[in-house]
Amino acid sequence: MSTSQEISDPAQATSSAQVKWPRYLEATLGFDNHWHPAAFDHELAEGEFVAVTMLGEKVLLTRAKGEVKAIADGCAHRGVPFSKEPLCFKAGTVSCWYHGWTYDLDDGRLVDVLTSPGSPVIGKIGIKVYPVQVAQGVVFVFIGDEEPHALSEDLPPGFLDEDTHLLGIRRTVQSNWRLGVENGFDTTHIFMHRNSPWVSGNRLAFPYGFVPADRDAMQVYDENWPKGVLDRLSENYMPVFEATLDGETVLSAELTGEEKKVAAQVSVWLPGVLKVDPFPDPTLIQYEFYVPISETQHEYFQVLQRKVEGPEDVKTFEVEFEERWRDDALHGFNDDDVWAREAQQEFYGERDGWSKEQLFPPDMCIVKWRTLASERGRGVRAARVEMS
Amino acid sequence: MSTSQEISDPAQATSSAQVKWPRYLEATLGFDNHWHPAAFDHELAEGEFVAVTMLGEKVLLTRAKGEVKAIADGCAHRGVPFSKEPLCFKAGTVSCWYHGWTYDLDDGRLVDVLTSPGSPVIGKIGIKVYPVQVAQGVVFVFIGDEEPHALSEDLPPGFLDEDTHLLGIRRTVQSNWRLGVENGFDTTHIFMHRNSPWVSGNRLAFPYGFVPADRDAMQVYDENWPKGVLDRLSENYMPVFEATLDGETVLSAELTGEEKKVAAQVSVWLPGVLKVDPFPDPTLIQYEFYVPISETQHEYFQVLQRKVEGPEDVKTFEVEFEERWRDDALHGFNDDDVWAREAQQEFYGERDGWSKEQLFPPDMCIVKWRTLASERGRGVRAARVEMS
Amino acid sequence: MSTSQEISDPAQATSSAQVKWPRYLEATLGFDNHWHPAAFDHELAEGEFVAVTMLGEKVLLTRAKGEVKAIADGCAHRGVPFSKEPLCFKAGTVSCWYHGWTYDLDDGRLVDVLTSPGSPVIGKIGIKVYPVQVAQGVVFVFIGDEEPHALSEDLPPGFLDEDTHLLGIRRTVQSNWRLGVENGFDTTHIFMHRNSPWVSGNRLAFPYGFVPADRDAMQVYDENWPKGVLDRLSENYMPVFEATLDGETVLSAELTGEEKKVAAQVSVWLPGVLKVDPFPDPTLIQYEFYVPISETQHEYFQVLQRKVEGPEDVKTFEVEFEERWRDDALHGFNDDDVWAREAQQEFYGERDGWSKEQLFPPDMCIVKWRTLASERGRGVRAARVEMS
Repeated sequence: MSTSQEISDPAQATSSAQVKWPRYLEATLGFDNHWHPAAFDHELAEGEFVAVTMLGEKVLLTRAKGEVKAIADGCAHRGVPFSKEPLCFKAGTVSCWYHGWTYDLDDGRLVDVLTSPGSPVIGKIGIKVYPVQVAQGVVFVFIGDEEPHALSEDLPPGFLDEDTHLLGIRRTVQSNWRLGVENGFDTTHIFMHRNSPWVSGNRLAFPYGFVPADRDAMQVYDENWPKGVLDRLSENYMPVFEATLDGETVLSAELTGEEKKVAAQVSVWLPGVLKVDPFPDPTLIQYEFYVPISETQHEYFQVLQRKVEGPEDVKTFEVEFEERWRDDALHGFNDDDVWAREAQQEFYGERDGWSKEQLFPPDMCIVKWRTLASERGRGVRAARVEMS
Repeated sequence: MSTSQEISDPAQATSSAQVKWPRYLEATLGFDNHWHPAAFDHELAEGEFVAVTMLGEKVLLTRAKGEVKAIADGCAHRGVPFSKEPLCFKAGTVSCWYHGWTYDLDDGRLVDVLTSPGSPVIGKIGIKVYPVQVAQGVVFVFIGDEEPHALSEDLPPGFLDEDTHLLGIRRTVQSNWRLGVENGFDTTHIFMHRNSPWVSGNRLAFPYGFVPADRDAMQVYDENWPKGVLDRLSENYMPVFEATLDGETVLSAELTGEEKKVAAQVSVWLPGVLKVDPFPDPTLIQYEFYVPISETQHEYFQVLQRKVEGPEDVKTFEVEFEERWRDDALHGFNDDDVWAREAQQEFYGERDGWSKEQLFPPDMCIVKWRTLASERGRGVRAARVEMS
Repeated sequence: MSTSQEISDPAQATSSAQVKWPRYLEATLGFDNHWHPAAFDHELAEGEFVAVTMLGEKVLLTRAKGEVKAIADGCAHRGVPFSKEPLCFKAGTVSCWYHGWTYDLDDGRLVDVLTSPGSPVIGKIGIKVYPVQVAQGVVFVFIGDEEPHALSEDLPPGFLDEDTHLLGIRRTVQSNWRLGVENGFDTTHIFMHRNSPWVSGNRLAFPYGFVPADRDAMQVYDENWPKGVLDRLSENYMPVFEATLDGETVLSAELTGEEKKVAAQVSVWLPGVLKVDPFPDPTLIQYEFYVPISETQHEYFQVLQRKVEGPEDVKTFEVEFEERWRDDALHGFNDDDVWAREAQQEFYGERDGWSKEQLFPPDMCIVKWRTLASERGRGVRAARVEMS
């Protein structure tokens, strides 16, 4: 059954969406028991606090004696978030601003109550702490109840490579996280970037779209970790440099110089990480994380990686990043994607787009991602239903 | 059973509301299978796009080769609204900004995909297009699944008269559409306009209210189309120019000149169109349309009609409209009505006003309108219940 | 069973919360059939209108012939609030701006219709009026269907004392009313005020917390009215002037002068009134009312009382109030409390904090208040469920 056929009968599309990707459709708040990025390492100076929301959970990050710690951002007593006015009277602890309940950042145990010395609750109450790992300048937090897996299981191959340096930004996008992953992994949406100033000035070619040539060549890694789908753009597709309507050319892409090539590989990995190689320049790889915040928001991490041979190269990369990559590429180019995800939110969030959408052959990459995520994502996190 | 008696027993009023006007109460998003105004003709230059929401449906209007077209404002593929960045690469088509899916504006068929030449989905997928008619400078769209009826069936008598010219404005009001119709057709609400600067400066008389004299004289047209209720103000009511409290005069209206008369006729027509004749001047007729947008919003069209004998008269009318009618009458006077409808929204929208209201004899016009609409409105459009 | 033990098993805490304080948990909009403050007397000049929302009901206050009146703020006819444009054409009445329906402020009867003299609805329709009492400069309204009780039943002892003068302010806080009462009566939350400029400049001592010494000494008045819980701070607790962590002093309070004492008594009274005596100065008593507006809002009344022996003393108090108490104490100090209540709203409002909270021994005062309120509050007012 071809993707395009599913599309022509919406009723059939609906039922097949629910049959094929049941856990993916449920995972409005992402996948549990995975590592997700929480912040950048440089945001956390000693004693600094940063509050984030990950998969619907409020998490407070801080650095104590050099190490980054993550603890539930809510006092066990009356539920207030520490982050409203985070207090630290002794390294390795956080105290609540309301009644002085004080927790150990390592195990979440209530170690003292500033307002009530010797209180019987001391030592008997605790809150959640989260496993943390810092790698390549990014702070990762393991969300879920299982024992933390190896960090490398939840990162694209190459992300942890030595002799590379990574720089990036993060920001909040007003759409569900899945619209983020699908936008990033969708090769055909390149059409919407055609007027980006970036397109003419850079050293990679930007076609209007891609026609699948050999779809079976798409590679699904679903046995070992990390698990992902790898799409070789340069092999599996024919790039479209002339857009036609009824056979008439209506758009024609600028192709300056033989050396221009499209990005060779695009891949996506559980729990929802994109890798575009190379991008936005032949010397760079771009990673993107779409961390669920709520049903209608995700935190968008954009990270660029470059091979470096020493501190000189790092310095050069840092200067370039500030001068060029941050504004022109990560914003100038990717702001279009943010806009596109937000434009989809109403359809998928309020009008059941998951069953009404009508996919076409180039969406096979999305189909394969959804299938993999639905079958192999460790734990589904559906939207919280709270009693009110 | 008199209207006032129904009122004195709210419990009885509730049940009778549901018994008498069941389809009217359901029609939170208006009546299907009717023509509704979408915009003014002059808003749509060739190639221009205007996005509107009618009866809960998102509709994209444009003009192609001189003709106004209306198409569903959402791509079949991933549901995004074209109107976020409407694209037209060839007259008679609209292309989606996301992946270049391109539709024929005449039949909604997917005619090409800019990013994927020869895609198997071409020709197999389609989206909704709407019947359009332009009359008297107004663009009408037929909303519903039936074959479109004649436009004249859904317009007040006289609206299409030759040798007349029409000018108007539209704007969004924060109330359900029914509160718009009822506010317009309610003759007694004239009380709230008593301090409008318009009242003393114009050539029509403004009483404080109307006491029903011969209620049976109200005419209900419920057999042929258009169907409506006609209330002859000058015959069926006694205008109240002195407002009293316990027999004491507390307000007394200025009546300068014998020539001042009240508007002779007020009528309302399915699917919800008001006609006040003459108004706001003995030389003018005012039409009002209250097009449902959502449960809590409607688009308010105010249109003035004048008999003209040639281009000179049209020119004179246009100059007057800009100098006087637009600001002083359609805004200065009717802004009060907008304010009143919005002040009712909470009661009817959130606190079940339909069963709690207590009507009185002058509301017989509203009762007759609700009865007609409930019995004869072609198709009820209740609020969409979407899966989330 | 100690409070701290309940806490250590959240599941047990949940069920016990519902078992112990069922009516308190239901009372999201407060307790019916009690007197609640509506406004200050000085806000209502003759003929002035003030609209308030109390326990979810919209109430319109006005002064007619010297007396304060309270009437439902919604016309019986089409439900619009009078307060959008309150009209009075004759002392003792209110007229609706929409159609001139006019009500007697004493009994709520429809006494005339300005737009329709002699209308049959006159005298047959009525809306709710509320019992009003003005005492100590505060306007109290009895909300509920029972015959009004004596005002003194719903006020802390001493509030109505002769030879005292009261001055205060009110404002809207974005939290449920119960978080207001509990914040006020909670002695341990004093910790969060430690950096208030007020603390060092005033004549009362501010410890960091209180350790219960003799909890059984807390007095519950649950037989006669008013009913309340009285906590003798100076007798039942050991104030904590040194805050320690693992035995190490991390905060040490300034104690200037032997004369500094803590407030002697804190008490709370049905339907939700706090008394702190003395506070914020040895010459003053502070009363606080937390009047439910909606599930997520309350009106916060802060009133200071001082013994006066004549007009000279009143004058002195008024000058001091403007110069010092209003800004430095009622704002400078209590703004922290407003902030704390709002910081708790999400936990209690959206995440079922009532069953997730984990109380500790100093919260015994809150436990006793909840128990009393649940058992003795006259009528529970749960959130309105309206048909839409």
